[in-house]
Amino acid sequence: MSLSELDGAALAAKETAAEAQYRELCGRNLILDMTRGKPAPDQLDLSNGLLTAVTPDDHLGEDDEDYRNYGMGTGIPEAKRLFADFLDVAPDEIVIGGNSSLNLMYDFIAGAVLHGVPGSDRPWGQETPPKFICPVPGYDRHFLVCEKLGFEMVTVDMQDDGPDMDAVEALVADDPAVKAIWCVPKYSNPTGAVYADTVIDRLAAMTTAAPDFRIIWDNAYAEHHLGNGPAKLKNILEACRAAGHPDRPVLFGSTSKISYAGAGVAVLGGSKANISDIADKMAVANIGHDKLNQLRHTRFYGDLDGIRDHMNKHAALIGPKFAAVDEALNRHLAGKGIATWTKPEGGYFVSVDVLDGCAAEIVRLAGEAGVKLTPAGATFPKGEDPRDRNIRLAPTFPALDEVQLSMEVFCACVELVCVRKLRSAGT
Amino acid sequence: MSLSELDGAALAAKETAAEAQYRELCGRNLILDMTRGKPAPDQLDLSNGLLTAVTPDDHLGEDDEDYRNYGMGTGIPEAKRLFADFLDVAPDEIVIGGNSSLNLMYDFIAGAVLHGVPGSDRPWGQETPPKFICPVPGYDRHFLVCEKLGFEMVTVDMQDDGPDMDAVEALVADDPAVKAIWCVPKYSNPTGAVYADTVIDRLAAMTTAAPDFRIIWDNAYAEHHLGNGPAKLKNILEACRAAGHPDRPVLFGSTSKISYAGAGVAVLGGSKANISDIADKMAVANIGHDKLNQLRHTRFYGDLDGIRDHMNKHAALIGPKFAAVDEALNRHLAGKGIATWTKPEGGYFVSVDVLDGCAAEIVRLAGEAGVKLTPAGATFPKGEDPRDRNIRLAPTFPALDEVQLSMEVFCACVELVCVRKLRSAGT
Repeated sequence: MSLSELDGAALAAKETAAEAQYRELCGRNLILDMTRGKPAPDQLDLSNGLLTAVTPDDHLGEDDEDYRNYGMGTGIPEAKRLFADFLDVAPDEIVIGGNSSLNLMYDFIAGAVLHGVPGSDRPWGQETPPKFICPVPGYDRHFLVCEKLGFEMVTVDMQDDGPDMDAVEALVADDPAVKAIWCVPKYSNPTGAVYADTVIDRLAAMTTAAPDFRIIWDNAYAEHHLGNGPAKLKNILEACRAAGHPDRPVLFGSTSKISYAGAGVAVLGGSKANISDIADKMAVANIGHDKLNQLRHTRFYGDLDGIRDHMNKHAALIGPKFAAVDEALNRHLAGKGIATWTKPEGGYFVSVDVLDGCAAEIVRLAGEAGVKLTPAGATFPKGEDPRDRNIRLAPTFPALDEVQLSMEVFCACVELVCVRKLRSAGT
Repeated sequence: MSLSELDGAALAAKETAAEAQYRELCGRNLILDMTRGKPAPDQLDLSNGLLTAVTPDDHLGEDDEDYRNYGMGTGIPEAKRLFADFLDVAPDEIVIGGNSSLNLMYDFIAGAVLHGVPGSDRPWGQETPPKFICPVPGYDRHFLVCEKLGFEMVTVDMQDDGPDMDAVEALVADDPAVKAIWCVPKYSNPTGAVYADTVIDRLAAMTTAAPDFRIIWDNAYAEHHLGNGPAKLKNILEACRAAGHPDRPVLFGSTSKISYAGAGVAVLGGSKANISDIADKMAVANIGHDKLNQLRHTRFYGDLDGIRDHMNKHAALIGPKFAAVDEALNRHLAGKGIATWTKPEGGYFVSVDVLDGCAAEIVRLAGEAGVKLTPAGATFPKGEDPRDRNIRLAPTFPALDEVQLSMEVFCACVELVCVRKLRSAGT
């Protein structure tokens, strides 16, 4: 029964019970952390073969190239083949970066601000201001890049099959200052949504006032399923090419949540015109990225099937944590009309929407009970959720029993804060 | 006897002899390369212990921190201590980067263009245009960064003890658009000059119209001597602090020519205000750099004495190559009045000045004889040497016998082109 249907006395009794439960949980003196999408140590252990993949006796690449030295600024050919398969592009449609796809995205966007991109009439920074479409809820670090690089962030709603395309099409149609859109197309951060083919086709085909509009395709979770295998995703580069907009998408990915979060390999894919422009910019800014780490990765994973086998092992470790989150949410909150949540098939997050105006207080109370959550609002530009209702849960890093305990606290906080909200609304 | 003192007949005979010698060398069908400052394979082998320094059984940092995961965006504490000693700064005056100090420099300057630095009234990019002091001859990749980021490059002469400080002081005194100067203070690229204490003191003390003037202190060859131990260099950060300009210098270094050119560790040092600003910018652009590679380096080298022991081994390998360059230059060109050259005590280059108007032709002829040299003009902004006289030799990568052969070709080309020049001048 929805709590909003309870009468005043019943709600008061609910609040008393919720307060007692919350106090009991506070008494346990927990110290738990569900803030960041970090892999757990047992996930990192899966890739320790990386550490012995390149040895003093066996450090040369194919054709006996010495990857210890300078050169090959856009990556070693072995890595280009492996990660071209991973991004579903051709080996000449890719650049291999360092250990951070965020860094590749930042550099791409900063380069566009300073210099423009193929098709630009002038640098993006000369728009006053340039605008970036941000589906919400979304990823805080995407928004921070926009904020620091001077973009006005225009939000559109994230739906179950991708961004609200009616809104996106309306935004891009007339305003040439609207330069780009953030997309996490598979197991989106934080909702877990997978973009539908129809959404991808509309992104590819839409008419944009900006001749140099870009889709920032952050496919961070391309192979990161939770047990049922990776979802299918329509190829954005092919879709854009077919629609006559080959330079529109720029694809990003990394092994941060495949190998090591701190020592992986990041990659960028796109049309040959984009790759050439990016390689030119990179050649000015950098002597090239760590090729030995690229070699470690290509040797350890071998090919895309190797990555997929490896991701099944990750799924076996984190799948139960996501199941525990869903179980707790169902057990405590189902049918009460105070929260909805996603049940992702992959990625690193569960997104919870609570009653309007309750998210920040829930996060605060959970923190006081010893459970650190991602700050409320983090999934919106500038950290401001206009309805104060979205909370991102990140269950991968804590151990399973810690996830279970954290969820007891979280659900208790949701119930307590939402009951109080309903009572204050009723008075 | 200087060739310029020869009469016409004697010069004609010289030209005939030089042409014969050049043709003979061409007939050997050489394929040699002295273009880039790359370490040779035997130098890289010195650091192969890096490849086994972090293992599956021993991958945790001090305090059992897991460097495989996210976090510690400015570097691991072990690396901060080691490289603080290396840069001669405090451990809280350093940031550890990825594998490219050029990338740290580019990001620093691009950040200044977009946002400014501590002390800025406005972003550097709002000057029309911002100006950068470039001692010449200098490093082509420095100049390329300036060019792409929209700076006007103002040259000053590089002297035996550093840049012409009278010229530098005059440039910075009145024009607030003059924002920075490039300095390679020890074994400068390409002349090998070491900055004198008096030069460093003047850089530290000079009055600049720009409140946010920066010295880009690219100490790329801090420990890179050729046999007689590293030269002493006055501490720029301390000198600037003593002069009341603590934020003026930003120090850069890397292990690119200590460990691996393609997989080293780059570092940045400076005042706490600069470090804080740089760390903030880095936190937006990056998830942090490869901490396992930092750990490899700290374990393999241990401390600054370990780096110095290691650099003695480098000197033993490359010292003879530099000696061969000097021997050939002396044997072929001394006293002829057509070339002067540096005899560096460290670094990666020898700088040769030939008769005005001859450098490009010498490089062209050497190339036709199978010896690739750094393009003439590369040591000047936009690749334009106004006197067409400077040539950079990079003897580290080829084997010793290849260096010797290359120098035979080079000296023959110098003689041939300069004799022709003298003859045409005489007609």
